Amino acid sequence: MPHLVIDFSANLTDFPEAQILKDVNAALCKSPEIKDEADVKSRTNRIAHFEIGNQPANRGFVHAQLRLLAGRSPETKKDLAERIAVVLRKHTPHPAGMLVQLSVEILDMDRASYVKERL
Amino acid sequence: MPHLVIDFSANLTDFPEAQILKDVNAALCKSPEIKDEADVKSRTNRIAHFEIGNQPANRGFVHAQLRLLAGRSPETKKDLAERIAVVLRKHTPHPAGMLVQLSVEILDMDRASYVKERL
Amino acid sequence: MPHLVIDFSANLTDFPEAQILKDVNAALCKSPEIKDEADVKSRTNRIAHFEIGNQPANRGFVHAQLRLLAGRSPETKKDLAERIAVVLRKHTPHPAGMLVQLSVEILDMDRASYVKERL
Repeated sequence: MPHLVIDFSANLTDFPEAQILKDVNAALCKSPEIKDEADVKSRTNRIAHFEIGNQPANRGFVHAQLRLLAGRSPETKKDLAERIAVVLRKHTPHPAGMLVQLSVEILDMDRASYVKERL
Repeated sequence: MPHLVIDFSANLTDFPEAQILKDVNAALCKSPEIKDEADVKSRTNRIAHFEIGNQPANRGFVHAQLRLLAGRSPETKKDLAERIAVVLRKHTPHPAGMLVQLSVEILDMDRASYVKERL
Repeated sequence: MPHLVIDFSANLTDFPEAQILKDVNAALCKSPEIKDEADVKSRTNRIAHFEIGNQPANRGFVHAQLRLLAGRSPETKKDLAERIAVVLRKHTPHPAGMLVQLSVEILDMDRASYVKERL
């Protein structure tokens, strides 16, 4: 059930999408909260049109949103966010002179109405 | 007001976007919860970069997120999710040897701050 | 921390992405709620595949989602949504014969699990 979407600004030209997807799934699947590794569905999303703040500075960002069925403890959410952050910290490029912001967000999904099946 | 976003993995090469958008809007508009058919705004989003789990298996996914103004009953949410699932079950391709996951999520939108108008 | 994502239907062919991003960031940064202008991370997202309602009408849409750390007052949320709406009202094209819908949504992000840092 976990859905992970990683947005990154297109000025992070060498952002290693495949490597990050592989590593972040590995990190999440080691959590006892993930019962079936196949449930982890992650994607990267290159953002071509963006604006950060209102100053003429050289800036980039990477932002991950993890969506989970509601009911996880605050500790579990914090742990999962940190697993993602570890991977992003390691692999996100730091172009010279660019301020790069990294953030991770956890969003609850409504459990009662969630549909999940395998075709 | 309902916003529907349907993500699908790019390995579902024959995913019929136009047909699914048409059918899913028709299915939602038949619900008594939808007062004005023009309110239903749906989009499909082909995901080129994704990773499912951490095993070298042939996997794909389709995931729909429906965003509604808060206040609907659990029964209404379940019904709307199922209307979407029916269409996705019918039209999502099943390439030979691929495990395809289908999921539908309902997300509440804050009613007090929502802006809506026609230009 | 605010994340702003502006979806617009691709039939709004002259949608001025760069101008809107600049103006919306300027409008948000004037709010006393925004402590550091560099925190505002905005993107536009052109939607190529969409369907609005179930009638053969000429329709388009622009929809903004602003994600904020939870805890803002309803008045603050309403003010921020309206700042975004003002910019979209001003710059969204109105092609002749097209009904264009505009909407703005505020979504809370879980504060306890949020990760934020600069690389």
